[in-house]
Amino acid sequence: MGQLRRDPIAGRWVEVAVTNPQKCDEFDLKPQVKKGGTCPFCPGSEKMTPPEIEVIRDPKTRPDTPGWTVRVVSNKFPALKIEGEIDRRGVGMFDMSNGIGAHEVIIENSDHNKDLADLTQDQIRNVISKYKSRSIDLENDARFKYILLFKNHGEPAGASLEHSHTQLVALPIVPKRVKEELKGAQNYFKFRERCVFCDMIAQELQEKERIVFENGNFIAFCPFVSRFPFEVWLLPKSHNPEFRSIDDSAISDMAEALKEILVRMKVKLNDPAYNFIIHTAPIRDGIYEEYHWHLELMPKLMNVAGFEWGSGLYINPTSPELNAKCLRETKI
Amino acid sequence: MGQLRRDPIAGRWVEVAVTNPQKCDEFDLKPQVKKGGTCPFCPGSEKMTPPEIEVIRDPKTRPDTPGWTVRVVSNKFPALKIEGEIDRRGVGMFDMSNGIGAHEVIIENSDHNKDLADLTQDQIRNVISKYKSRSIDLENDARFKYILLFKNHGEPAGASLEHSHTQLVALPIVPKRVKEELKGAQNYFKFRERCVFCDMIAQELQEKERIVFENGNFIAFCPFVSRFPFEVWLLPKSHNPEFRSIDDSAISDMAEALKEILVRMKVKLNDPAYNFIIHTAPIRDGIYEEYHWHLELMPKLMNVAGFEWGSGLYINPTSPELNAKCLRETKI
Repeated sequence: MGQLRRDPIAGRWVEVAVTNPQKCDEFDLKPQVKKGGTCPFCPGSEKMTPPEIEVIRDPKTRPDTPGWTVRVVSNKFPALKIEGEIDRRGVGMFDMSNGIGAHEVIIENSDHNKDLADLTQDQIRNVISKYKSRSIDLENDARFKYILLFKNHGEPAGASLEHSHTQLVALPIVPKRVKEELKGAQNYFKFRERCVFCDMIAQELQEKERIVFENGNFIAFCPFVSRFPFEVWLLPKSHNPEFRSIDDSAISDMAEALKEILVRMKVKLNDPAYNFIIHTAPIRDGIYEEYHWHLELMPKLMNVAGFEWGSGLYINPTSPELNAKCLRETKI
Repeated sequence: MGQLRRDPIAGRWVEVAVTNPQKCDEFDLKPQVKKGGTCPFCPGSEKMTPPEIEVIRDPKTRPDTPGWTVRVVSNKFPALKIEGEIDRRGVGMFDMSNGIGAHEVIIENSDHNKDLADLTQDQIRNVISKYKSRSIDLENDARFKYILLFKNHGEPAGASLEHSHTQLVALPIVPKRVKEELKGAQNYFKFRERCVFCDMIAQELQEKERIVFENGNFIAFCPFVSRFPFEVWLLPKSHNPEFRSIDDSAISDMAEALKEILVRMKVKLNDPAYNFIIHTAPIRDGIYEEYHWHLELMPKLMNVAGFEWGSGLYINPTSPELNAKCLRETKI
């Protein structure tokens, strides 16, 4: 039996189990299995991808050959194409636009068998630096309004290639969910004259029970209104609307925190499939001072069913308090 | 490469493939397999469920024994419980409520091996009649604001029991997605003084290429802004905000249309997992004349990934026009 909780950002209701909390390890946990075979992201296969856009590589090696540690390329099968002008028009009652945008892949390391959780803090730092530099580069293109960074790990989370990678999509529109969050943050600010995310951090630091990890610049917790079991949010403690303005010391702390969360999940939940998404302010068309960038991580432990789709009301069969305790106490 | 399309109801953007349309049958289609074993929804197991609330049964048989064709019971593991008063309160910056609500199961037929698609039009008519009578009954409970009817078919769509059934949840809140749709319909009405769904029906009837099936009272089409491959919407042609006011002749036409869609999908897509949801106006707290009830059906042919979660922007690798043609031309 549950408790309904409402998040103050998007106004989403979630039912969480509290009276009869499911145990940490009651899910049907199957680790992600790598099938192998020819991989376009492995060293030696560089010609199978479009040419590299940015790279960290041994200076003695040539572009698009082995010798790299992080490699950014265009997606060979992009969701949106980069060439052309935006042509938005009506079709009867509907609106339409051609699919202008950029779709890039950040290959996180050269070893096919190492996932993000297996990398060192230094290696993860390099990956996050590429998230930042690609964001800044694409910001210069006046056609784009939003840059979305996300990672799908494992087939159940929608990953079609198993070599560990993150994706970046630059969009000619501000996506609906981002607009909702911006509006929620603005409404809260109007009412309280404070940032909703900063207030959330303050409440979590005071109550402590949902915190998973904390360092100088970052805090990771299972949100009070978790939609999914073991959902974790990672937030910079200082207010900042834009991910791309992250500085070197914060990148280092973010790498540490991300590794902590991913390793704990891998150990406790048997290498679950997961998605993470970096939520950041739009590039142009306004000032978004009320917003606070963050990363949302959702392990894929169950299927989303008709109820959630139909209602936007999520049923979480566990409690965030118990999930956080589990992850905190996991020996790594 | 795709085309971005925006739906005029919730303001959702979807990218659909148009220049290089994927073929109808390119998905990895695995039929739903019934594992058998003891089933609490089978005749003879009536004592394994809570007592029946409504039933269509041979008048010579006793309640909670075999002899029924459609049976409605409370969910044994309800998402929300029916007893108690609503107690909404703040927890720091958050809102909370106890989980008051009803959660019922409509067992659609007694044969474990027959799914909704396998029933006759008459049998489906009886199932829809129960959707209606349960909706009307629960409407009397002043604590509830919304009644959500939905079906999960197959494990990938979130079904935990394989005996064909539909679920009903009565909620003390109006869910977020419903609110969005209501607001979208209201905004459109303010601007055009017409119903957005009625306009959509008119445009589909004129363009014809996305229609899957049509009879006197109903139209089924793949929406211009389909989020998922082979998504189908079923709408009553006459404007009506509330599902529960459906009359007998419309129930009969709805049963025919639903069977047509389900059988075509079963044949063409190899018995896919799917969800359907009946979208209807809230019970109280306002007049929703601008709304138009309908059913949304989404076969589960691919995993929803980080991109969709993060953005609310869906990428549909097929085109609704091609999907509709496929379903229309399927021999049944």
